[in-house]
Amino acid sequence: MAAPAAPPVKGLEGIIATKSSICWIDGAAGVLAYRGIDIHELAVHSDFEETTYLLWYGKLPNQSELTQFQKDLAAARSLNSEVYDFLRMVPRDANPMEVLRTAVSLLSLYDSDEKDSSHDANLRKAYRITSQIAMIVAIFDRIRKNRAIVEPDPSLSHSANFLQMLNGVKPLDEATKALDVALILQADHELNASTFAARVIASTLADMHSAITGAIGALKGPLHGGANMETMKLLYAIDKSGREPTEYVGELLAQKKKIFGFGHRVYTTEDPRATHLRQMSEALGKASGNSKWFDMSRKIELYINGAKKLNANVDFYSASTYTALGIDLDLFTPIFAVSRIAGWAAHVIEQLDDNRLIRPRADYIGPKYPAKYVPLGQR
Amino acid sequence: MAAPAAPPVKGLEGIIATKSSICWIDGAAGVLAYRGIDIHELAVHSDFEETTYLLWYGKLPNQSELTQFQKDLAAARSLNSEVYDFLRMVPRDANPMEVLRTAVSLLSLYDSDEKDSSHDANLRKAYRITSQIAMIVAIFDRIRKNRAIVEPDPSLSHSANFLQMLNGVKPLDEATKALDVALILQADHELNASTFAARVIASTLADMHSAITGAIGALKGPLHGGANMETMKLLYAIDKSGREPTEYVGELLAQKKKIFGFGHRVYTTEDPRATHLRQMSEALGKASGNSKWFDMSRKIELYINGAKKLNANVDFYSASTYTALGIDLDLFTPIFAVSRIAGWAAHVIEQLDDNRLIRPRADYIGPKYPAKYVPLGQR
Repeated sequence: MAAPAAPPVKGLEGIIATKSSICWIDGAAGVLAYRGIDIHELAVHSDFEETTYLLWYGKLPNQSELTQFQKDLAAARSLNSEVYDFLRMVPRDANPMEVLRTAVSLLSLYDSDEKDSSHDANLRKAYRITSQIAMIVAIFDRIRKNRAIVEPDPSLSHSANFLQMLNGVKPLDEATKALDVALILQADHELNASTFAARVIASTLADMHSAITGAIGALKGPLHGGANMETMKLLYAIDKSGREPTEYVGELLAQKKKIFGFGHRVYTTEDPRATHLRQMSEALGKASGNSKWFDMSRKIELYINGAKKLNANVDFYSASTYTALGIDLDLFTPIFAVSRIAGWAAHVIEQLDDNRLIRPRADYIGPKYPAKYVPLGQR
Repeated sequence: MAAPAAPPVKGLEGIIATKSSICWIDGAAGVLAYRGIDIHELAVHSDFEETTYLLWYGKLPNQSELTQFQKDLAAARSLNSEVYDFLRMVPRDANPMEVLRTAVSLLSLYDSDEKDSSHDANLRKAYRITSQIAMIVAIFDRIRKNRAIVEPDPSLSHSANFLQMLNGVKPLDEATKALDVALILQADHELNASTFAARVIASTLADMHSAITGAIGALKGPLHGGANMETMKLLYAIDKSGREPTEYVGELLAQKKKIFGFGHRVYTTEDPRATHLRQMSEALGKASGNSKWFDMSRKIELYINGAKKLNANVDFYSASTYTALGIDLDLFTPIFAVSRIAGWAAHVIEQLDDNRLIRPRADYIGPKYPAKYVPLGQR
């Protein structure tokens, strides 16, 4: 058939691309739920491991299932020597998302299930890649700072182990909890661009590593995972200028500059993830005795609420939260990947359980067919 | 808003995802055209460089433009030492698509325009990645066979240089022409899954290397670029069995097995690319004095035409064509990438010239919200 004549919906906005049992979003009501369970309940009561189990298996684990899951995830904290060699070899000022994308692609060459894309093999890969992404982010940061690599500690939770491998000291319970909540909040978000990219790639029956590598590439973009880094850059710029945040941001708006961290394709009310990250940013600021970034963020949020009727999204308060945790600016997006791998893997497995190649059409607006092939001598 | 209630179109079949000026397909009439020019004209009169120029710049080059383009593409035949190190380090039995995916991801760390995603910088990256993908495929094959790496030769065309780097000898004109036609035929195909994955990734404003890395991952899948490899595996299996091709394939059909290389989401008549590849496969068979693979392919094609009313697609005759060129089975899909990079780059650049984040919705069919968070002790 010829390409249908209907005009495209730009960015596929509002177009239903698949059925899915993983994530429920009601943008008008500000609801986000994993497998039907409200994100507010999970943020308060759950942890990253339990939430990941929920996303992958479709139900909350009982005690023995959870214990086994924690054990298996911890046992998967292992990288082959070639990945260590790669992390030592790359330039120290390399973009950590490009390093992560390359390292995850490299992992597949050594994966014990490399040729097996069955449901069970993909679950095994999901365990491994989830543990490995966290390790890669932490180890690259240690190497680039000339610090000794910290071995993974199987007695620690996913979040505590990550912070220990990153900072070289056992994290405070408050820091572990704050990171863990951030990881829960960002673990899935339906067909966001990186998850959708992962499903498109998986739909060709390419392997899990191909899908996750593509997703990491998509997450890198400033319109997606890169937004919290842009938010923090703004906070630093305002701080350096010594000016009032509202005045500074007002000028940017007057210049029609984009303020990252506000508004969302799906939510018309407050992003429910922002609610928790705001609280966490405030609590961490108080606990550390430095509320500067929270206070500045809050002023900007209220100003943009008033001036543009835009709400803060998940990215806005993750910036000040991560900064309060002592995490470098350019690790914000990699940490988003440390979390979102849970959702990516769930979506890849769901896609493959009832697959159909994802292959839309384009509305052709180029030179009318048949255009003439003019011989070279006559051009 | 809540997710719209309309049911999804599985695989986005027939859904218009974007406007595009690059590729025109009329599936019912069996027409494929780049920038309005019929693929039959390009296959007969053009070469890969001219066709790539057409895809990227939207018009055929005049003589001086073409000369400059050939010169610039040849000058881009360069890899940093870290990519050579990587290619020497990977296991010799590694999947070449995984090697290519990782190597292209690695390239971005050393790209001189790494932080620049402007239209012009992306064009410069397109030149480099186009030349580099061909080099990576050839060099990895030399290394894994314990053969000396062949330096690129700037006096040769893209296709001739690739064959020389792969085989270590100056290729016959017939071989260069056959590969060149295959590269022209596969250079673009509108929103196929890998190109669509590249556009989704690019739409987050991630970089060109992220988009191409994701596209290579998608192309790896047997429902996409991997199909020609599956076709050749079938031919080898039939040959080994010593049985009649029609009988062998008939049994597979009776077992409801998928025969790769037949049918296409978009074409309801013959895939226009198959027409040329059939001719090429036949001509190469005659020239080499070994028509076995062509003859077997032709028997299978006629049988499937009759039994299933399915037409051969681009993958079917590329299998016997590449085999006649002496190319290893597992390089078929990498060579598809050597060609398709032309289209991927054109689409990424077009996407970014008028970008909107690609972010569709899902039709949620999971546990009804709000599902209860049952405390761990009560599960």
